[in-house]
Amino acid sequence: MRYELYYWPDIQGRGEFIRLALEEAGADYADVARGRGGTAALTKLLEGSSSARPPFAPPMLKAGKLVIAQTANILLYLGQRHRLAPAGEAGRLWANQLQLTIADFLVEIHDTHHPISSSLYYEDQRGEAARRAGFFLKERAPKFLGYFERAVAGNGGKFLAGAKLSYPDLSLFQIVAGMRYAFPRAMARFEKNLPRVKELHDAVAARPRIKAYLASKRRIPFNRQGIFRNYPELDAR
Amino acid sequence: MRYELYYWPDIQGRGEFIRLALEEAGADYADVARGRGGTAALTKLLEGSSSARPPFAPPMLKAGKLVIAQTANILLYLGQRHRLAPAGEAGRLWANQLQLTIADFLVEIHDTHHPISSSLYYEDQRGEAARRAGFFLKERAPKFLGYFERAVAGNGGKFLAGAKLSYPDLSLFQIVAGMRYAFPRAMARFEKNLPRVKELHDAVAARPRIKAYLASKRRIPFNRQGIFRNYPELDAR
Repeated sequence: MRYELYYWPDIQGRGEFIRLALEEAGADYADVARGRGGTAALTKLLEGSSSARPPFAPPMLKAGKLVIAQTANILLYLGQRHRLAPAGEAGRLWANQLQLTIADFLVEIHDTHHPISSSLYYEDQRGEAARRAGFFLKERAPKFLGYFERAVAGNGGKFLAGAKLSYPDLSLFQIVAGMRYAFPRAMARFEKNLPRVKELHDAVAARPRIKAYLASKRRIPFNRQGIFRNYPELDAR
Repeated sequence: MRYELYYWPDIQGRGEFIRLALEEAGADYADVARGRGGTAALTKLLEGSSSARPPFAPPMLKAGKLVIAQTANILLYLGQRHRLAPAGEAGRLWANQLQLTIADFLVEIHDTHHPISSSLYYEDQRGEAARRAGFFLKERAPKFLGYFERAVAGNGGKFLAGAKLSYPDLSLFQIVAGMRYAFPRAMARFEKNLPRVKELHDAVAARPRIKAYLASKRRIPFNRQGIFRNYPELDAR
């Protein structure tokens, strides 16, 4: 079966968490919106009022007859199918729990540059963004990152869930990469207290399929349209 | 098995989505933090560094040896166990997808009064809150609510997922109740276009176990410490 991923073509965004899982799984997939006529296909799937189970927003994954939306939900599905999640119920719930905490963190990362509205430009909410980013770097980012450090430690020091790689590890890699891009000065300081998270990031980056993916054109570079944005004025001094 | 729910004792908050599912299931549970010494027990479970699978934040549900966190994850677990979710995989994924979209909506509802930081009082972010709430009521709330109206319609007009009640229905009931409390003027206008969502709300409220729960002291009233807050200056004019 060839999967079809539907996500905005010019940003990593939430789609990247799906791409990383598909790549690590060696799955056959089309990144539909990045192909010819792809954005129209995405819009059609998103607005298709005929669907009995409409998606609210991308990413969406077509898997045969299924159309699945919500990042953590897609990963729940892929994780079981491609051995990217623990086999038992307790482990699967733990992986899902971690992924939902990553999702919460991601919303707070996004809202540092868009604290008022996603429909406004950053430039129209700069003052509020500076204020929110200050609290984010002082309180929230260290709390989330410290939590993942403890979670890796509690699981034996190498992975987040079980004795081998699972999809939240891939997502945590992406969080570290994104935080380094968006907040390089703050992240350098945080990482002094995150030895296990750093090692996990490096171990994911070195996996053959992920390494090949990151070096390919399939990996969209970080940019200022995505969730992680580098605005030096929002970073630590 | 007696469940133990751990959530802040003075607000409905995210814990309410779990309470509604436990109540509808007729499950045996303790609302631990509302009992004597309960907040200390909650703090202990939350900060228990000994745990190999630490929770990031309440709500947490103890189910035998399992400690499950993240609202949608707890509901995924309870839904399967108590026939509050569709039986098949496609239906279960759909229920989870809906619940995650409700979770996204809830974050945006919360951030109308706390757009800068949860560690500040509302009074210290009133200007930003007014600005964010304006966009929320103009763009986001109608988008989310309209989506759920379409989802109920697409599923036959009575429930969100399948031919009978499932946990996202209980959560959508709570969203409607909360929106009516927090934004009574705006919500009255929205509801003119939400006939099916209104009917679903009423049908949930009339279910015998939910009706008894809502009339009991186990149901904490809405208040200005929770996620849904009534600040008339943030509502529509």
